[in-house]
Order: sequence, then structure tokens, then C-alpha cells
Amino acid sequence: MHQPDGLVAPCSDILTLLQANSESSQATMRFDRRSPDVYGLAHPKALLKEIAENGEVLQLLGNQHIVSSSQFDGAMFRQLLRLAAKFESNPERYTRFNSPLSGKILINAFYEPSTRTRLSFDSAWHRLGGDTITITDRSSTGIAKGESLEDVAEMFNNYGDCVVLRDNHADSVHRMMGSLRIPIVNAGNGTEEHPTQAMADLYAILKARPELAREDVAADNRIQIGIVGIPRRMRTVRSLLKTLTAFPGIIDQITLIHDHSVSVTDLFDPGQREELEACGLPIGTSHNLKEQLPHLDVIYINAIVPMGQNYETLGRAFHLTASDPFKEGAIVLHPLARGEELDVSLDTTPHNWYFAQARGAVFLRMALLTCLVERAERVMDVI
Amino acid sequence: MHQPDGLVAPCSDILTLLQANSESSQATMRFDRRSPDVYGLAHPKALLKEIAENGEVLQLLGNQHIVSSSQFDGAMFRQLLRLAAKFESNPERYTRFNSPLSGKILINAFYEPSTRTRLSFDSAWHRLGGDTITITDRSSTGIAKGESLEDVAEMFNNYGDCVVLRDNHADSVHRMMGSLRIPIVNAGNGTEEHPTQAMADLYAILKARPELAREDVAADNRIQIGIVGIPRRMRTVRSLLKTLTAFPGIIDQITLIHDHSVSVTDLFDPGQREELEACGLPIGTSHNLKEQLPHLDVIYINAIVPMGQNYETLGRAFHLTASDPFKEGAIVLHPLARGEELDVSLDTTPHNWYFAQARGAVFLRMALLTCLVERAERVMDVI
Amino acid sequence: MHQPDGLVAPCSDILTLLQANSESSQATMRFDRRSPDVYGLAHPKALLKEIAENGEVLQLLGNQHIVSSSQFDGAMFRQLLRLAAKFESNPERYTRFNSPLSGKILINAFYEPSTRTRLSFDSAWHRLGGDTITITDRSSTGIAKGESLEDVAEMFNNYGDCVVLRDNHADSVHRMMGSLRIPIVNAGNGTEEHPTQAMADLYAILKARPELAREDVAADNRIQIGIVGIPRRMRTVRSLLKTLTAFPGIIDQITLIHDHSVSVTDLFDPGQREELEACGLPIGTSHNLKEQLPHLDVIYINAIVPMGQNYETLGRAFHLTASDPFKEGAIVLHPLARGEELDVSLDTTPHNWYFAQARGAVFLRMALLTCLVERAERVMDVI
Repeated sequence: MHQPDGLVAPCSDILTLLQANSESSQATMRFDRRSPDVYGLAHPKALLKEIAENGEVLQLLGNQHIVSSSQFDGAMFRQLLRLAAKFESNPERYTRFNSPLSGKILINAFYEPSTRTRLSFDSAWHRLGGDTITITDRSSTGIAKGESLEDVAEMFNNYGDCVVLRDNHADSVHRMMGSLRIPIVNAGNGTEEHPTQAMADLYAILKARPELAREDVAADNRIQIGIVGIPRRMRTVRSLLKTLTAFPGIIDQITLIHDHSVSVTDLFDPGQREELEACGLPIGTSHNLKEQLPHLDVIYINAIVPMGQNYETLGRAFHLTASDPFKEGAIVLHPLARGEELDVSLDTTPHNWYFAQARGAVFLRMALLTCLVERAERVMDVI
Repeated sequence: MHQPDGLVAPCSDILTLLQANSESSQATMRFDRRSPDVYGLAHPKALLKEIAENGEVLQLLGNQHIVSSSQFDGAMFRQLLRLAAKFESNPERYTRFNSPLSGKILINAFYEPSTRTRLSFDSAWHRLGGDTITITDRSSTGIAKGESLEDVAEMFNNYGDCVVLRDNHADSVHRMMGSLRIPIVNAGNGTEEHPTQAMADLYAILKARPELAREDVAADNRIQIGIVGIPRRMRTVRSLLKTLTAFPGIIDQITLIHDHSVSVTDLFDPGQREELEACGLPIGTSHNLKEQLPHLDVIYINAIVPMGQNYETLGRAFHLTASDPFKEGAIVLHPLARGEELDVSLDTTPHNWYFAQARGAVFLRMALLTCLVERAERVMDVI
Repeated sequence: MHQPDGLVAPCSDILTLLQANSESSQATMRFDRRSPDVYGLAHPKALLKEIAENGEVLQLLGNQHIVSSSQFDGAMFRQLLRLAAKFESNPERYTRFNSPLSGKILINAFYEPSTRTRLSFDSAWHRLGGDTITITDRSSTGIAKGESLEDVAEMFNNYGDCVVLRDNHADSVHRMMGSLRIPIVNAGNGTEEHPTQAMADLYAILKARPELAREDVAADNRIQIGIVGIPRRMRTVRSLLKTLTAFPGIIDQITLIHDHSVSVTDLFDPGQREELEACGLPIGTSHNLKEQLPHLDVIYINAIVPMGQNYETLGRAFHLTASDPFKEGAIVLHPLARGEELDVSLDTTPHNWYFAQARGAVFLRMALLTCLVERAERVMDVI
């Protein structure tokens, strides 16, 4: 196509040579708005079809804090995922033609570093027409003057309509709950839980396999899930496993994959494994990811372990690449900042569902937040 | 009430045992949106009734910076409090059905740590439909490149419609004023002043005792105010005292309560006490809070003294608890982060007006900001 | 004029004596909203008249990242400046009666200190009715957990509609481009470029001399530009020179003024000067600013040289004051935080166009951003 006036100055060929970093500058400045990731664009509609709306269930969230994945049953998870799928199927509809959160203020309090979670909540709230107040640093707050978390929470009642909290102390969210008259969402509390991440993980799995959203799943449709991670020390894994207890019927087997640096006894809290099994989750363990791969429908991998204000990496003995022996249709999920454990060669394979997982997290949070501030009726099909 | 599907997974009883912090996790995730604090919900309407609207007075704020509590007289304070009471009496009205600050931008510049004040201004602006730009850190600004405050202020003219400044240097706000063509609000400048906090203190007092808002107050309605704090070193106390000079008719006695570590001569700036008395404020001092309590209608307590970028605590010799000999109907105010000086046992007593004081501060700031950006006519009853 | 009730408390004369900083507090709290700078208020309309609208050209920006000033030709620059002038001529129109960016989210990522650029983009976006998500600190992001810039960019696709990036590493913007499906604007990448600043510089020049916006400029209207700065090490100068290559017809002479600490060979990258000359820019150099002044129509001065996370000041051998021998009608531009090189005595002279330059930068960015998110048709005269 002929390049019309406007771009590329007459001297541009010469000019590019001027640039400090000529190699990178040679790259075109054009981009393509279309997503290379077909997942997440086609699938939300399919998931939407599988679940019948039940607004009454979502109304129950109007007086709930969101702290643990054990708060919900399958009916609630299905309705939240349905609403997320509805938002994702028609992203423009609720931002441009309707602002369900107009006049509402989110207090986005992140006392621990985060890009994905903070921006994901911030974006979710803005996309629904609300305003946000952000805290990214303890030292910039009254906590630096010795204000208690209970008092900070009492103040938050005056400033906003919902609080999202990320803190490396597991008990901070519990302390704030006591004085809050607005909902608080636990966006990661130390090694304890990260329930909205687990919901986003579930959303990705059910988008990939919508038939799993049905009330009863045929035995031969059940899936095998491999989790590279440590339930005892990773809040994302802890919350995902709790979430799956609401869907024992979709699971054939869960395999915890860990290297020899972590013994089976260090893998779980005392009683954690037994309780999960009592909820109907068949759990195995393995040291050999490659051996497991051909059987796994879902591979969940993560190597970041929160350690107070810092992070430790574990399980980087494991390294997934495009050339590994994946089962056909297998999906790979990764909840956090990607490290060596997940090779970029996977990005362009159909196994890459971790990008769809991250995108879906925004719509999932849109769904949850809308219910928490009692605006669900604005986005229901039937009122 | 029967718990419908949605919450509490089948396994939840078991699951709670899984949780890292089981004690706290046992706590219900439910909350109650109704405020346990009856004050501030009923009282704004009563205050509203006591004051007749005079929009002309508020129009005067259209070309004023807000730097000192000595800028206003009783008429202005009454009109600002009236507008605050109007907002608080009907909080939904101006956010959802009318956005007086739509299209307006606040530059919220906090070069000193703050939760309450920063979030309170941010929330106030958002509730009126405006957008905010936040600065929480000098090192993230051009000041780090040696830009002068005068130049920063000149730039602010281009970026927003109003500036709120918190800085530990008393003269920063005065330096910025010189180049500003938009209003600036002093949100605390070193040890000098914090006028909007003092307005919020006054608002809490008049909400508790609406009859004090009348033009002439009967002698036997006058109040005794006890202030635990140091006028010479606390900007909040300095501004409160200046504010009270506009209402000599409501005051029977003001008693400054200080421990022996602070001599009377260190309590005031040279001439400060004399000037306040010249304005009609009868001022006494005492070392004995408990002895004063039975006589005090208002107890204002604070122990944080700004010291450059840090804070010193003074007056923690004093400690208020629910079992202290309060006068009937006495109200306790506290402007900042609460320390040992104010026991949590007071939170559930009728003497707790410090929560209502903090909530009211948002509505007070909504009132002031609306006038500063010349949008008062949008919220007047009579135009 | 008689001071009505409302301001100035009865005791205010006395009260001012109370104030910690009485000298500054004596200053009136009144301000004047009218700009003392006539430039930029009258001139945008004149510039608007000189350029005919061509919406087709602006449509080309709908799939472009903005990284280098060499991306554009004169036609594109003219249309962007025209739209900026349209916004500046009628600032209320697009904020209050029309919100071209409603429902759009800007990710404003500043990994290097900035007041002007960050606030300018933030303000530009808000004035058009959009919402912003701000990052001011690497350590508060997932990058602290080792997330790659490519992955951060992949996440940004999910959270916003446009990214503005300031980073001290020249290649960060190029790395992010690879995974972005939304436009990114280079707001300063190390020593490489700062294209929107250069557009703002050009906008100031053409507002001051609207006749230069015509397709053909009479030889005797051509201007002499003096640049105090180092093209090799200052991204603003590098980008300005590239921008001027699209307008060889308006330039009589460009003189780079540098002190003896910088040799001519250190002034340019290898080949940089030759390439600029090949594009039709006559370039000279000088050590003597005062000698050049009487001939210069435009003086561009800056002394800040980016050095990784810090800054070096160069060229402070040069110092402009009101008493210098300026040519009549000469305009002074300064892109960044002002240091000793630019005396405040110039602020009140007609040579001060650096304030108009800073204000214009907001409108210039409003114009560019509107096109980048495909909302140009909402602000065209003819559709």
C-alpha cells in the first residue's frame, strides 16, 4: 500500500541512522490492535452459554468481605465467572454505554510491590466508570506515624466504597475487617491467600473447557491438573486448591510437582492435604514434570514464593518450553511475574493460556467488584 | 436465617482449619454497612437548619488561596459549615445526580506522609465528579532536578484547577502562591497551620451543639474547651485557636493542658496567647487533665508534633479512657493518627466524636473546594 | 472596594502577628485567574487560521507508536499543531461539553523523576474525559520481581488503551513495543529522544510566528535558531533537530552554542550533523551566546543532561537575563526544569515564551493522544 503523507519524513531513511540505538529504531512504529491470542475472545461466549444467570446468588456478595477462597461454593463461582464472561464478551458495553460504578470510589492499597494485581483492579474499576484512590507505599501514609490498621480502616469508611488490600502480613486484612463498613478484598496477604487470583485461574480453565461449567461433568471429561508450586508457602496455590474444592466433579487428579529441595512434608501445612482430599480432591505428588506432562490437561506453574517484603524463587529446577511433550489441548497457566520456569517459546503455542488468564483477571475482578458495591442489578440480564 | 447457595462451600468447616491464620479466619466475612456512629448522620440536618444560606459570602472564595485560619470571619465559617452539612445530609445527591466538579482537576501534592488528609481531599474531589493528579513523593518530581517551587507552581497552572499542598517547610505554600493563578489549599505547612483540619474540628463541634451556630449564643450555652496540645508547635492547635477567634461568643473558657515537660512559656509563641485573649478567647492552662474533665464540653487531644520530616510525640503523659470522669454530653476530638493518648475503649462511648470529625472532614473539604473552583452556584439552594 | 463579610476576621490584623512566618503571611491570599502571559491565549487562534484541517492525516496515527521525531513529515506536524491550537483556543469545549476520551484508560509509567511531563500527560488525558493509571516507581511494580519489560507490556494490553513511558534506558520503549497492541508514547528514553517535547517546542515557535506554518515561507521570513545544548547527549535537542528536518523551509540558520568544555566533535553523534545538513538544515556552532543573541529569532536553552538515574548540568557558562541584547520579537524556549541558565528577570519580558511552551505542551499532548486512541473523528470540524 502506498504510504500517504503524514508518516515517514522525507529524510527518514537518513534520519534513522542518526538514532542512538539504530537497530531497535529500525523497527516499524506500526502495531496491530488485533490480539494474536484467540483464546479469551471466542471462549467467554461459549462459557456464558453454559451457565444460567442467577442474580440472587450474586446479591449475597453485597455484605461480604472477600478474604478466602473458602467463602464460596460452586454456585457462586459459576455466577461470578458468568458475569466475567459477559463483560469479556462485550467489553465496550459496560464502559461506554453504561457505568455501573459511576460515583463509586475504590481505595487501592498496595503495601507490597505489584504491577498485575494493582493495575488489574485499578483498570477493572475504571472500566466500570468508577474513580480510584491509590496507596503504593506504607511510608507515604499515616501508618508511618504509628496509626493502627484498625484506625486506617475506620478512616477508609469515609473515603471510599471498597478497599483492595495487598500486604505481606497475613493478618492485616483480618485486622482491617473489624472496623470496615465497606467491603475489603484480599489481594494477597502474606503466604495465606489470594482469592481473586484463584478465581481468575478457574476462569481461564473454564473458558478453555466450557463443558466443565455444567452441573454434572461426565467422568471422561474430567481433567488432570499439574501444579508446580508449594501449597504451604504460595498463597496463589493455597487459594487455587481451596477454589477447586468447590468443583470436585471436574477433577480426575491433581498432581503437586516439586523438586527434591522440598520434601512432601514441607509441601503442605499440617492437615492441609488430608482436608483437600476429604473435600474430594484426589492429590498426588511427583518430582518429574516431563513424565507427568503427557497426562496433564492443565499445567499451573509458578516459582515465586513470598518472603516478607522479598521473594524467593523455588522450583526453577522446572522449565517448560514449546518442545516439551504436552498433551493435545493442554493449557499452561502462570499467575505471576514470569521467570525462567516458563520459556517465551511457549507464548506462540496453543498451550499459552497464561496471557488469556491475565486478561481474564480484569473481567473477573470487574464482576466481583460490581457485586461488592451492590451494583449487580445494573448488569443483570433479568432484574 | 437460612444460608442460601452461594456462600460457604460444602467443605468450609473443614477448610477453615486449613488456613494459615485460622483464628482470624474463623471470623465471619460479613459486615454491616450501617454506621455504629449515630453522630454525623443525624446532626448535619440539625446544623443545616440553624444557618441561613448566604451564597454571596461563598462567592468570595472564588479568588482566594486557603493558607491560614485567620482569613475567615464567622459568616464565612458558618456558610462553609452549612454547605458541608448539606453535602453530609444528602451524600448521594451531588455525586450521582450532579457532578459540580466535572471537568475539573485537583493537583494533590503531598510532600509529607499522610493518609487522612490526602485521601480526604482526594475523596472529596472525586465525590463531586472531578479528577485528581497525585504527587506523594518529592523524589519523583522535577524538584529532584532542582526546579524551584515558584516554577513548579507556574507549571501547576497548566495542569490543574486547584492545588492542595502538604509540606514540612512552612514557607513552601507562600512561595508557590506567588506564581499561582489557580487556588492553593494549605494542607499542613510545617508547624505553621492546617486550616482545613481546624474547619473540620469546628464542624464537629457545631454538629454536636447546633445551637452554637446561632448569631448570639446564650451565656449559659457557652462551652468549655480543653486542648491537650502545644499551640507553639502543633499546626492543628494553632489553626483551631485562630478559628475559634471568629466565635468568641460560644466560648466560656479554653484550657491548654500540658505536662511538666513543657513550660507555659514554651506553650505559646511570643505574643500568641495575648493576641488570642485580645480576640476574646479566655485562655487558661493546666497540668491536670483528670481534674479538668468534669468541666469540659469539648476535649481536643493530640500528641503528634511535626519535626521536619519526622514526628515527635508529646503529652502522652495524658491518656483518655472510657472510665474517665467525662461531663455528660462531652465530646472528644482527635485530629490525627491516634496513639496511646486515646484509648480504644472510648470508641464505643457517646464521647467518641473523633470518628464523626474525620468523616465530616470529607464533606467540609467538598464544601470548600466547590467554592474555590467557582462552582458554588451549582450547589446553592437559591441562585 | 469595601470588603464584605466573609473574609478577614475582626482580629485578623492582630492574628497575622501570631503566625510563625509573619512576613510571608502578610501577603494577601487573593489571586488573579487571568494569565499575565498574553502569548498562547491569542496566538493559537492565529495558528489555527493558517492551517487547513486534514483529518485523513491524523487517522494515520491510529496504529502508530510514538517513539521518534523522525516518524512524521510536515503535513502530520501541521495537523497535530492545528488540533492542539484548536484545543487551546477553546479549552472548555472538549472537557465540559464533550469527552473524547471517555471510557479510555491511560497507563502513565514514569520510571524516571518528572513533574512536567508526567503531570502534563495526566492532565491532557483527564481534560479529555479519560481515566489514568499511574506508575511512578519501579520498585512498586512487578519489575521488582524480575518481570521482563516484554511481559509488563503484554500485561499493559489488558489494563489500558495507551501507554506513556519515561525510562532512563533508551531501549525500554523499543522492548515494550514488541508486545504492545495499544499505542506507546516515548516520554523520554535515556539520551535518545523525547518527541512530544520537541512537538511542544515546535508548537511554541509556530504560535509565536504563525506565518511559518504556511506551505511556502518567504525567504526573508525564515528564522535563526540558537540552541544552547548538546545534540549528542540531550534527548530534547536530538528530537527538536529531527523535528526541524520536516521544516527546512522555515530555517535560515541553526547555531549550536556550547562552552569550551564540549568540543565540536563531542557535540554530535558520528554523522549526526551531516545527516541534519543533508535534510536541509544549515548548522553552525558558536562559543559566544551574547554575540549570537542580536541575530537569533528563537533561543532554546537547557542545561540538564540525563545521566542514567541522575542528571548532569552543562552549559551553565551561559546565563540569559532580561538585560541581554535580544533581537526584537525574539522568543526564549526552555524545555525542562529551569536552572541558573535562565534568569527569572526574563519571566516578565515579551521574550518569555517558555511558560507558553509548557502550557502548550498540554494541548499538544491532548491532540496526539486523541489520535492515538482513534478518537480523532470526535474532534474534527469536518467528518
